[in-house]
Amino acid sequence: MAKSDVKVLGAWPSPYVMRARIALNIKSVEYELLEETFAPKSQLLLQSNPVHKKIPVLIHGDKPVCESLIIVEYIDEVWASGPSILPSNPLDRATARFWAAYVDEKWFPSLRGIGAAQEDEARKAAIEQVAEGLSQMEEAFQKTSKGKDFFSGDKIGYLDIAFGCFLGWLRVTEKMNGVKFLDEAKIPGLVKWAEKFSADPAVKDVMPETDKLAEVAKIIMARLRAAGASK
Amino acid sequence: MAKSDVKVLGAWPSPYVMRARIALNIKSVEYELLEETFAPKSQLLLQSNPVHKKIPVLIHGDKPVCESLIIVEYIDEVWASGPSILPSNPLDRATARFWAAYVDEKWFPSLRGIGAAQEDEARKAAIEQVAEGLSQMEEAFQKTSKGKDFFSGDKIGYLDIAFGCFLGWLRVTEKMNGVKFLDEAKIPGLVKWAEKFSADPAVKDVMPETDKLAEVAKIIMARLRAAGASK
Repeated sequence: MAKSDVKVLGAWPSPYVMRARIALNIKSVEYELLEETFAPKSQLLLQSNPVHKKIPVLIHGDKPVCESLIIVEYIDEVWASGPSILPSNPLDRATARFWAAYVDEKWFPSLRGIGAAQEDEARKAAIEQVAEGLSQMEEAFQKTSKGKDFFSGDKIGYLDIAFGCFLGWLRVTEKMNGVKFLDEAKIPGLVKWAEKFSADPAVKDVMPETDKLAEVAKIIMARLRAAGASK
Repeated sequence: MAKSDVKVLGAWPSPYVMRARIALNIKSVEYELLEETFAPKSQLLLQSNPVHKKIPVLIHGDKPVCESLIIVEYIDEVWASGPSILPSNPLDRATARFWAAYVDEKWFPSLRGIGAAQEDEARKAAIEQVAEGLSQMEEAFQKTSKGKDFFSGDKIGYLDIAFGCFLGWLRVTEKMNGVKFLDEAKIPGLVKWAEKFSADPAVKDVMPETDKLAEVAKIIMARLRAAGASK
């Protein structure tokens, strides 16, 4: 497929955009990244995702596909001859989807909560939640990886992408708050996994540098705090 | 498969539990419904879904599968020889998943918001959001049904299940608040769809009676308000 047939509306710091890009990389699909800025949103974005007006949007031919995990499943189904992203066994698929939903609905909101916290107490509580979530994910990793490098075994798969896309933001949060989440004594499997994931050929060029991401984080966190203060 | 090999931990008023039951009905899989009460939660539920401790849980053999839409996809994949629940085309699948997520993340929270509202103004705003969401879904219906009875065409599919499971609660909300959401003048496609869906053989025995559901609703809404008041 010609490069121009696949476009990703995105922005490099977005973990959700990373998901689409990693999935395309796994399938060796060339694509064009159209960088969105915070504001104003592009006409193409507004037209392609009129309901949520959010990135990422995958545009395949002239058809938009929205929502990062839906995009990942779409990529897996359309480019089915490439390496599989979802496990083949229905129970393993259900497990991968379960933990991906956990990461999105429970764990990442806690991570955001650290940056958005206005008081030390709320920040401490959020830090604790993030650590608890990581213990939960360590347990899931031990069960599903079965001694291999990734959640899905030998190769990066759905849950690796869903969770791994937040590693940049986890590292930035560690740095900005003087905490250590990726602690080998507590979550040895995930620490090793995080290294392997970040170094993977499908990932390394889209995983943002921590320092560069920290600059973006400062802007976003200031906005989150301002939004909280005006409530 | 023997009946006892498939169990659903659930409760009849839960829209999420309905999803699992409808999917099993579509596939003609016999199952045992183990009714959970509000409290205390059963040991089986706590063991089967230790992360969320929520219904529904599908227990297939000795393996638990959690989260209603994940259960629906699991059922579709395991009993693959029965009628398909997800569309076969990747773009149609992505579209169905997109609207199912919209219903769960945006639309149903508005519907709950009507019952939970403590002030008239908040209730009015929630009622408006629900109506807007229905217009959005009417548009989606017109696009995806292509003149057929269901979102997925001739037969009930993934999005029909995801959205249709809330019809009982929509009717209860209409009744308790003296509003008419299922209005033929505004959303003719959905009104007809709602009738067809509710009368479908896979659905009719699990769709709760509005009056019976209204009794449950009164209890839940009182709790929601009490929870809101104690914040």
